[in-house]
Amino acid sequence: MFVSECQIRVRYAETDQMGYVYYGNYATYFEVARVEALRQVGLTYKMFEDSGTMMPVVHLNCKYKKPAKYDDLLTIKTTIREMPSTRIFFYHEVYNEANVLLHEGETTLVCIDMKSGRPVLCPEILASQLRPFFNS
Amino acid sequence: MFVSECQIRVRYAETDQMGYVYYGNYATYFEVARVEALRQVGLTYKMFEDSGTMMPVVHLNCKYKKPAKYDDLLTIKTTIREMPSTRIFFYHEVYNEANVLLHEGETTLVCIDMKSGRPVLCPEILASQLRPFFNS
Amino acid sequence: MFVSECQIRVRYAETDQMGYVYYGNYATYFEVARVEALRQVGLTYKMFEDSGTMMPVVHLNCKYKKPAKYDDLLTIKTTIREMPSTRIFFYHEVYNEANVLLHEGETTLVCIDMKSGRPVLCPEILASQLRPFFNS
Amino acid sequence: MFVSECQIRVRYAETDQMGYVYYGNYATYFEVARVEALRQVGLTYKMFEDSGTMMPVVHLNCKYKKPAKYDDLLTIKTTIREMPSTRIFFYHEVYNEANVLLHEGETTLVCIDMKSGRPVLCPEILASQLRPFFNS
Repeated sequence: MFVSECQIRVRYAETDQMGYVYYGNYATYFEVARVEALRQVGLTYKMFEDSGTMMPVVHLNCKYKKPAKYDDLLTIKTTIREMPSTRIFFYHEVYNEANVLLHEGETTLVCIDMKSGRPVLCPEILASQLRPFFNS
Repeated sequence: MFVSECQIRVRYAETDQMGYVYYGNYATYFEVARVEALRQVGLTYKMFEDSGTMMPVVHLNCKYKKPAKYDDLLTIKTTIREMPSTRIFFYHEVYNEANVLLHEGETTLVCIDMKSGRPVLCPEILASQLRPFFNS
Repeated sequence: MFVSECQIRVRYAETDQMGYVYYGNYATYFEVARVEALRQVGLTYKMFEDSGTMMPVVHLNCKYKKPAKYDDLLTIKTTIREMPSTRIFFYHEVYNEANVLLHEGETTLVCIDMKSGRPVLCPEILASQLRPFFNS
Repeated sequence: MFVSECQIRVRYAETDQMGYVYYGNYATYFEVARVEALRQVGLTYKMFEDSGTMMPVVHLNCKYKKPAKYDDLLTIKTTIREMPSTRIFFYHEVYNEANVLLHEGETTLVCIDMKSGRPVLCPEILASQLRPFFNS
């Protein structure tokens, strides 16, 4: 299991007139969380695109438990529970500063060869970084 | 069953450097689709907020089948399959101009009394409009 | 002088907790207005990118007179006051349904050859459409 | 003169298919920069809204010199050049990691009493923090 945490400050731009974070913006928070998870093992998403693999999201699931609000300093806890093959499954939990769970989300990415447009195995530069977290 | 359709032109702002609609923007498209579905039966979301009921989203699910692209004229087909109680379930399908299904989504809204902060039944102004579509 | 009008319905996603359209979203409205102005003379921005010219914005100016609000049906009046050379100057006025002027903006685009990265004259497919509006 | 700096990592959501930061997103970066400038002197924008003053933007000006790109770690340098009265003028410069100036912007905020809707002097909690930077 691989776990990563990052912090995101809610921007005014991300609120709506309900005074909450607009419901579509969690997808962006998860993107930041995934990218920071990769950076933690020395990788950037740019590396994948530069090496010819893109990783579009094929599935998003969001459960809105309590609203995040303007200027909240959120902690996004991101977990990869199984070793990726062609797909990478991310689990995200969003906490506020009082450590209250506000939101649970899941994103699934698929590795695509940018030339052929076909699914491929997760790039070895990532797989090799993740394996130690999944060895029993 | 209540079915509604609306059209949305993809904005440059909504694309990302993959050349696709950014994955978080479907949530906004679904918001537009829900609002236009309501407008079709003579209602606006403003009416609900003005009458003291807000309807935050409590669940979002998105399946990305094929990418929508810049300047695509999308058709969002929105279906309410069951008569709302405190929750309203929307099913969304996104088609491009060639009538290819690009995306399937679901959003669940809960009706909340703005004073008490507690769930309430779907406002009668909406329920009365929807009942004819669910009478057997 | 070339004048074009388009209508944009304010989305919930575009509001902020002040209950107004977030100030950065006018840039998106202007993008839609420019694109619809082009479409009115039979052109799409895609045509330019496909033919090797991109048109990034080099200048944006926004004067916020009165707030646009959720669900407002805005009219964006877009004017090109002078025949484009390498730059195209757009003037934008945003009106609400009561025909109150809410916002004035200007955007300047520069035509760039996508191969060389250098400024070029406005593509002839556009210039030829615009000339009739500027002949004295 | 009051100067503040903050860093912002460009999100994928903020790029467009040109591969650049979408031109409307600089407004959001400036919002973050203003908020972090306030935080540096112990204030939050929330304090102003909670105390009955809101500060909508009345003017935005953006000069796009070079594009910011995905994953760039931007430095936003924000300067207040004159002691605020009812208006606060912010000057923003955006640099990339190579310290290249990518963008220059200006935002003007006006202090509004939330009850009366009328302009008021900059709240004393802010004025008192800023005065030391403007004493000659």
